[in-house]
Amino acid sequence: MTSRSVDEHARRVRALLAPALAHRTELVAVTAALGRVLAGDVHSPLDLPPFRNSQMDGFAVAAASVRTAPVTMPVAETVAAGDAGPAHLPPGTAVRIMTGAPVPDGADAVVPVEDTESTTDEVTVRVARGAGEYVRDRGSDVHAGDLLLAAGARLTARHLSMFAAVGLVEVPVLRRPRVAVITTGAELVEAGRALEPGQIYDSNGIALSASLEANGAEVSSVDRSTDDVDLFREILHRATASADLVITSGGVSMGEFEVVREVLTPLGGWFGHVAMQPGGPQGLAEVDGVPVLNFPGNPVSTLVSFEVFARPELRRAAGLVPIEVERLPLEVPLTSVPGKRQFLRGRRLAGSVTLESGPGSHLVAALARADVLIDVPEDVTAMEPGDDVRVWPL
Amino acid sequence: MTSRSVDEHARRVRALLAPALAHRTELVAVTAALGRVLAGDVHSPLDLPPFRNSQMDGFAVAAASVRTAPVTMPVAETVAAGDAGPAHLPPGTAVRIMTGAPVPDGADAVVPVEDTESTTDEVTVRVARGAGEYVRDRGSDVHAGDLLLAAGARLTARHLSMFAAVGLVEVPVLRRPRVAVITTGAELVEAGRALEPGQIYDSNGIALSASLEANGAEVSSVDRSTDDVDLFREILHRATASADLVITSGGVSMGEFEVVREVLTPLGGWFGHVAMQPGGPQGLAEVDGVPVLNFPGNPVSTLVSFEVFARPELRRAAGLVPIEVERLPLEVPLTSVPGKRQFLRGRRLAGSVTLESGPGSHLVAALARADVLIDVPEDVTAMEPGDDVRVWPL
Repeated sequence: MTSRSVDEHARRVRALLAPALAHRTELVAVTAALGRVLAGDVHSPLDLPPFRNSQMDGFAVAAASVRTAPVTMPVAETVAAGDAGPAHLPPGTAVRIMTGAPVPDGADAVVPVEDTESTTDEVTVRVARGAGEYVRDRGSDVHAGDLLLAAGARLTARHLSMFAAVGLVEVPVLRRPRVAVITTGAELVEAGRALEPGQIYDSNGIALSASLEANGAEVSSVDRSTDDVDLFREILHRATASADLVITSGGVSMGEFEVVREVLTPLGGWFGHVAMQPGGPQGLAEVDGVPVLNFPGNPVSTLVSFEVFARPELRRAAGLVPIEVERLPLEVPLTSVPGKRQFLRGRRLAGSVTLESGPGSHLVAALARADVLIDVPEDVTAMEPGDDVRVWPL
Repeated sequence: MTSRSVDEHARRVRALLAPALAHRTELVAVTAALGRVLAGDVHSPLDLPPFRNSQMDGFAVAAASVRTAPVTMPVAETVAAGDAGPAHLPPGTAVRIMTGAPVPDGADAVVPVEDTESTTDEVTVRVARGAGEYVRDRGSDVHAGDLLLAAGARLTARHLSMFAAVGLVEVPVLRRPRVAVITTGAELVEAGRALEPGQIYDSNGIALSASLEANGAEVSSVDRSTDDVDLFREILHRATASADLVITSGGVSMGEFEVVREVLTPLGGWFGHVAMQPGGPQGLAEVDGVPVLNFPGNPVSTLVSFEVFARPELRRAAGLVPIEVERLPLEVPLTSVPGKRQFLRGRRLAGSVTLESGPGSHLVAALARADVLIDVPEDVTAMEPGDDVRVWPL
C-alpha cells in the first residue's frame, strides 16, 4: 500500500478540489442573503435619501423668514411621509411636515414641533433656525453610483438593510459548494431501529452533513450504502450528477470488504495510507468529472479527516475566513507514535491547551467534548507540559 | 410626552418580555439540530461501542496462543463488520476479522493483518500480542447512563455525531422565540417597484427579520402596514396569534399620523421619549397577552433600538451567550448632545475604536460599514482621543 505524508495528501486534495470548487456567482434575494458572501462589488442605483426630506415632525420654512423669532405665519398645507407634497413653499408661509416627508422648494429648514405653537391655519415659531437645520439633503447618505459594499463581505442584517434601502431586490453571492455525502458499511443502522448483534448506529452521515453546513457548503444528498458494489456504484453516480464534490466514509482500508476502494480503484482512484492518526487510510478519486474524497469510517477518523483535508478547501470555496492554526503551550505531557502525525482531541484553557482523551478513533464522546485538535508532528514521540503545540480550532 | 432613561426603558422591556420569552423545550430531530441549544442533560441509552470489536483488519486470537510468535494456526472463520460473528473462538485457532467486527468470546487480542501471513485456512502470526491489543471493549467510549452533554450547549457537528452514534433520534432543545415584525409608514415601498415622489424603500422589514434570525429567534411573520389604523390593527392581531413577541417600526413619534401610537395607546401602551440618540421615540405595549416593542421608523433608529432593547432579551431567551460590552480607547475626538445617551456607529481598530459616521439616523450605509456601537453616557458632551468608551459589538 502506498503511503503519503499529511502535507502531500493535502496538496493532492487541493489540486483536485480547487478547480471543481472555484468561485461561482449566483443571484439571491436580499431577503434570503443573510450570512452569504458577496461575490461582486455592489453600487447604489440611486441617491439616498432619494429626495430632500424632514428629519423631524414640525414646520418647513424658509430660514430667512424665522430669523427674528418669535414670528407668526400662515400654514399653507400639511405634508405627511409618503405624500408627494407641494412643489413649492409660498413665500412667508410654513408647511406642517412629518418626519420623512419631502421638504418643498423654497423651504430650507424645519422647525421641530416642540419649538412652535400652532392652530390649524397659523404657526408661531419661537426658536430661530438656520438654513439646513433638520433637513436631510438628497444623497446625503449615499450617491447613486457609490460603492455600497465590496466583494468578499459576509452579509449581515445591516448590509441587507442598506441593500433594501436602495431598492435592490437581488445581490450576487458566491454559490455554496454542493457536496454529496455517502456513508458505507454493512454494520451501519439508522437511528430509531434496534441494533442487531454486530451492528452500530451510523453517525457519519450527520457528522459530515452538519460539518459541511457549518463550513458554508450546501449538502446535495446524504446516502448510506452497504458493502454491495452495485449499490454503492449506483449511489455514487447519482451523487456526482448534482454535486461539486462527493465525500464518502468507510470502505477504504485493508480489509476484504472495502466497497469504496473496490469500486474506485479501477476508475483511477488512489488508495493508500496517510501518515496520520487517526485517519490513516485515505482515498482520492475523480468520478464523472467530480472529485471524490474517501475518508475512513471510524467516526473520529471521519471527522478528523474532514477537518484536516476538506474544511480548508470548503471554506476557501465558500469565501469564509480561513481557520487560524495557533501555537499554545501544553498543560499536560503527551506521547505520540513515531512516523505518524497525530491529531489529538484537546480543550483550550486560558492560555494553554489540555488533552481531552486518548488516541482511540472510536471516542466520539471525547471528540464531542473537545474544542481543538492538537497537531503533533510526525517525528515527535513525547512532549512535556509547557511545550508549544499547533492547535486547530474545531 | 413622558421621558425615560435608556436603563429604565430597558428594565421595563425586560420585565414585560422575560415571562413571555421564558425558556420552553421542544424535541427536534438530531439531523435538524445544528446550532440549536440543548434544553436538558442528555444521557446515553446504551454502551458505546455496543459490543467488543476489532480496531484493525487482522486475526482475532487468544493472546496466550501467540505468546511464542511466529506461530501458525488454523483460521476457523471470517467475520466482517456487520456480521453477528461466531459466539466463541475454538481454542488454538484464529478468526479472520475486519475493523469494527465483533470479537468472539475466547479471543482477547487482534493481530493486524500486516503482522501475519495467511492462506484461506491457515495464518502465521509473526508478532506476539498481549491481551486487549487492538480490541475495543464494550462501553470503552461511553457507558449506558453516562452524561453525554449538559443542558445549555450549542450543538455542533461533533455533538450530533455523538447523539447519532448512541442511536438518539431526537433531542430536547430550547424553542426559539417566535417574533413577528410589522413595519409601518405610508411612504414605504417594497423593493422592485419604482419610487413615486415622497416614497422610500422599506428596509426595516429585512433589517429586523435578519437581526432576529442572527440572534436565535424564529421570524413568525413580516408585514408592512400603511398609516390606516384598521389595517394596522388587523395585522397586529394576526401577528399576536402566532408570536411570543411583536416588534413594530415607525408610527411612534410626535407627528399627526402615528398609527402605532394611535392604536396601542388606548390598549394601555406606553409611548414616550427615551433619552437616547438615535432611537428617542419608543413604545411598549401588550396586546392579546403578547408583548409589543415599538421602535421608531428611521432605519438606523430601528436597528440601534433592536441592539439596545431587543437583542439582550432575545439572546437570553434563545440560550445564546450574551453580548459582551467592552471598554476601548477612542481614536478620534467626539462630541455628544447633553442629556441624551448616544449610540454612535464605530469601527474597531487594533486596540481602539473610531467613528464610522456622523450621528444622523438616516445613515444606513455608514451603519453597514460599522462593526460596533459606541455608547456615550448622557452627561458627556465631549471626549478626547485616548478616552475609554463602552463599545457594543454588532
